[in-house]
Amino acid sequence: MLMDLYDPESFRSSGHRVVEALAAYLDSARAGEVPVLPLRAPLELAEQYQDSLPLDAAENAEAEVSRCLEQILSQSIHLHHPGYMGHQLPAILPLAALADLISSLLNNSAAVHEMAQAGTQIERQVVRWLCAAVGWDQDSDGILTSGGSLGNLTALLAARNHATQGSAWRQGLRDGPPLALLVSDQAHYSIARAAGILGLGQDAVIAIPTDSRFRVDVTALSDLYTQATQQGKKVMAVVGSAGTTATGAFDPLRAMGEFCREHGVWFHVDGSHGASALFSERYRSLTDGIELCSSLVWDMHKMLFLPGLITAVLFRRREDSYGAFSQEASYLFARRPEEASFDIGLRTLECTKRTMGFKLWFPLRVHGAKAIGQLVTQTFDLAHEFAALLKAQPDFELAAEPESNILCFRHVPAALRALENAPDRLDAHQLQVRQGVVASGKYFLVHTVLRNKVYLRTTIMNPRTTVEDLKGLIQAIRCD
Amino acid sequence: MLMDLYDPESFRSSGHRVVEALAAYLDSARAGEVPVLPLRAPLELAEQYQDSLPLDAAENAEAEVSRCLEQILSQSIHLHHPGYMGHQLPAILPLAALADLISSLLNNSAAVHEMAQAGTQIERQVVRWLCAAVGWDQDSDGILTSGGSLGNLTALLAARNHATQGSAWRQGLRDGPPLALLVSDQAHYSIARAAGILGLGQDAVIAIPTDSRFRVDVTALSDLYTQATQQGKKVMAVVGSAGTTATGAFDPLRAMGEFCREHGVWFHVDGSHGASALFSERYRSLTDGIELCSSLVWDMHKMLFLPGLITAVLFRRREDSYGAFSQEASYLFARRPEEASFDIGLRTLECTKRTMGFKLWFPLRVHGAKAIGQLVTQTFDLAHEFAALLKAQPDFELAAEPESNILCFRHVPAALRALENAPDRLDAHQLQVRQGVVASGKYFLVHTVLRNKVYLRTTIMNPRTTVEDLKGLIQAIRCD
Repeated sequence: MLMDLYDPESFRSSGHRVVEALAAYLDSARAGEVPVLPLRAPLELAEQYQDSLPLDAAENAEAEVSRCLEQILSQSIHLHHPGYMGHQLPAILPLAALADLISSLLNNSAAVHEMAQAGTQIERQVVRWLCAAVGWDQDSDGILTSGGSLGNLTALLAARNHATQGSAWRQGLRDGPPLALLVSDQAHYSIARAAGILGLGQDAVIAIPTDSRFRVDVTALSDLYTQATQQGKKVMAVVGSAGTTATGAFDPLRAMGEFCREHGVWFHVDGSHGASALFSERYRSLTDGIELCSSLVWDMHKMLFLPGLITAVLFRRREDSYGAFSQEASYLFARRPEEASFDIGLRTLECTKRTMGFKLWFPLRVHGAKAIGQLVTQTFDLAHEFAALLKAQPDFELAAEPESNILCFRHVPAALRALENAPDRLDAHQLQVRQGVVASGKYFLVHTVLRNKVYLRTTIMNPRTTVEDLKGLIQAIRCD
Repeated sequence: MLMDLYDPESFRSSGHRVVEALAAYLDSARAGEVPVLPLRAPLELAEQYQDSLPLDAAENAEAEVSRCLEQILSQSIHLHHPGYMGHQLPAILPLAALADLISSLLNNSAAVHEMAQAGTQIERQVVRWLCAAVGWDQDSDGILTSGGSLGNLTALLAARNHATQGSAWRQGLRDGPPLALLVSDQAHYSIARAAGILGLGQDAVIAIPTDSRFRVDVTALSDLYTQATQQGKKVMAVVGSAGTTATGAFDPLRAMGEFCREHGVWFHVDGSHGASALFSERYRSLTDGIELCSSLVWDMHKMLFLPGLITAVLFRRREDSYGAFSQEASYLFARRPEEASFDIGLRTLECTKRTMGFKLWFPLRVHGAKAIGQLVTQTFDLAHEFAALLKAQPDFELAAEPESNILCFRHVPAALRALENAPDRLDAHQLQVRQGVVASGKYFLVHTVLRNKVYLRTTIMNPRTTVEDLKGLIQAIRCD
C-alpha cells in the first residue's frame, strides 16, 4: 500500500506549521534576535551533510519537516535582520512569498498560454506596467526570465541577431566583421560572460572608462566607437548600467542613448539593480534617458523586494522581443499568429517557465506601487544619510558619493593613515574588519575592489534598517 | 505613516488563509471536481487584464489577496486533476511547494556559501545523491540550475570550451575548425537553440536519424561522424536523449557512450524527462550506459514531481563542472581555492541563485527515494497499460510502443481509414479531436508531429491518474 504523498490533509497541517514557524522566524529576524549570519566554515558545516540518499520514509513525517526547517533556519543568512546590508538580496515582502507558494503548488508553465492562462495574462500585464514605468508606449514589450544574468544574455542575444540580421543564429560567427561590445568598466560580470557564451569571446568587450563617480565617460565612448569602427569591427551594442553593481552608479543614460541613436547602434541598459528607481518619486530622475535604450534588464528580486528569481527583459520595439530566439516546436506553440504573443516561450530561454509574475502582481495589487516605491526611496535616503555620517568621521573615506543605496568606503584609522603608501596593509585591514564584523553576527557587509583598492561595501536592502543600525556598524568597525 | 509591509502578523494570517485555500483546491482538483482546463480564448481573457498599474493599496488587503488567488485558481490548468495528461509538467508533491515557500521567504542565494549556508550545503548533498544514482563516484560533480534549456546550454558550453581549450571563451569562434554537434533528430529544441546561442549556428547541428521507435541509429551516428571529420569539422559533442520529448524514447546510451569514448568526443545526455527512471527499480534499465556520458541534464520538475524550476547539470569529471564559465568577481567569491566548490555561482549562469535544493531535499528526507521512485514506476506502468488498451481497439494506431510514460497515437475511425492517402484530413481529425476533448474540461492532452504526421500525445504526469481515466479518454475521443 502506497503512502498518499498527495494527501491534502497532510499539506494543510504541514502548511499551517510551516507558516507559523516562518511567521515566528520573521518576527525574531526583524527584531535582530538572531545573528544576521550564523557564520560557519564551509568544510566544517559540510560534515552535517554526509548522509547518503534516504531510501525510506521518515518515521514521523511532521517531525522530519520541522527538523529540516529548523536546520535551514539556523544556518541561513537573515535578510530581514536590520543589520543585513551585504549583497543585493532584499528582505523580501512576505506577501510575495505566499504568491510564490501559489506558483509552486499549481506549477503552471507560462511558456504556453493554455498551460498557464492566468500566469501568461499576469506576466503580460506586469510587463505592460513595467514598460509604462519606463515611459514606453504600446509598441514596447518584454518577458520575465530567471535572473539578471540570463536577462542580459537574452537581450544581448537579440542584439547579436539584430546586428547580424539573423545570420549568426543560423550560420554562426565565422564570417562577417568581428563583433564588439562597448561596455562600462563597471559593468556586471554577466555582460563579459555573455560575450563568452555568445561566441564573440570576452576579448570582444571594449571597456569604457568611467569618471570619479564610476559613470561612463561619454567622450571616451565616442572615441572608442570610432576606433573600433576604424579597425573594421562592428559594434553590436553599447551597454550602460542603471546602478552599477559595485557602487550603484547611474551612467549618463540620455547622452549614451542619444549617441547610440545617432550611430544606429543597439543600446542595452543593465538596470538589474537600479531600474526600480523608476518607482521612486524622489529618485526617478537618476534614470533620465533610460527610455532611449533598445533593451533593459530589471531585476524585481533586487529593489522591488521580491524573492528570486524574477527579471524583466524589456524592449522598446516589440519586434525585438522576438529577436533573441527563433525556433519551431510543433507540439508546443499556438498556430495562429495573432495568438503568438500569448505563448511567451517563443521569447524566453525557458521552456518550462515558472509563473513568476504572481509574486509581483500580488504586492502591486495589495500594497500598491506607491508604497513599494517608498521602500526604494527609504533605502536610497538611508545610504545618503550614511554617507553624510561617514564623511563627518576622521577615520572613514568614501569611494564616491552614493547615488542609490550602495555605499563603498574604507576605514583608515590614524595608526594606518601613514600607510597610504603601503596599500596592501590598508587593503588587508578592510578585509580583516569585514571578517570581524561579520563574525560578530551583528552586521553583514561585504567588500569590493575599486581601482585596485579594497573597500567595504554596504547595500541597504532592508527597509527596516535605521540610521541607528548604521551608527552601530561604525562602532563595530572601529572596535574590531 | 508607512504601512508595515513586513508585518509578521499579516504574513501569518494571510499565510494560513492561502494554505487553507490551496488545500481545498488540491482536494477538489484531485477529485476532478473542476475542469482540468477552464479553456479561454487568449484575446478574450486579456480583457480582464487591462487595468493600469495600481498606485494605491487595496482598501481591504485580505479581501484583495483572496480575490487575486481566486482569479488565478479559476483560470489555471489543474495538474492534480486525474484527467491531466498533457505536457511534461507534473502534479507536484505538495510538500515540495512548502519547501519552496521556505526558499522564497528566506531568499538566500546559493551562488555564494555565506549567502546560503544551508542552501549551498543542501545543493551539494542532493547533487551527490543524484551523481550516486547515475552510478558515479566522488570524482563527479554538478550544480542545480533554472531549467532544462539552461541546463543543456550550460553543458554544451562546457563542451564547447573543452573542444576549443578555452579559446572560444576568450577569442570567440572565428578561427579554428568549424564546430559541429551530432544530435538525435528527436532531440529537444533547446539543443538546436543552444547551437544558435553559443555562436556555432543552428546549421552546425547534424541530425542523427532514429529508428522506428525514435531511438538513435548508432551506425548512422558513426557514418555521420566520419563524414563530418572528413569535411574538416570538429565534432564538439554527441547528444543523446534519455527520454525524447515527443515520444519518451531512450537512445542506446551504452553504444553511444562507447562510441564517444573510443573517439574522445564529449557525450551529452539530455535526461530532462527520463533520467528519473534511475529512481525506479523497474525502469532503471532504460538508462543503461548513462554513466558513460560526460554531462547529463536532469529536470527534477518533470518526473521527480517537483515544482519548476530545478534542473541538475551533472558532470562525470568534476573539473568539467567548472568548464562552462570562467570569470572573476572580486566582491563575490571565496579567495581560498579549497572553498571554491562551495561558491556554486562559479559554475552556474545565475548570480542570484534561488536555493532550489530545498524542494528536492524535503521530499527525499520525508517521503524517501523509494516512494518517489514508485511514482515513476506507476506512471510508466500506466502508459504501457494504455498502449495495450489502444492496441486492442480497431480505431487507434500507436506511433510506437511506449518506453516511458509518454504515448503518441492517432485516432483513425473506420470512416477515415480510407483516407490514409489523404493525410491532411487525418491530421486535421487529430487536431479537431484534441480541441474537442480539451474543451470538454474532462481531459487534457496535446499533439505532436512525428515524421510529418500529426499524433495525439499523452504523458502520465499525475500518479493519481488511473486506467479508468484512460478508458474515459478513449470514449471522449470517439464521441467528439
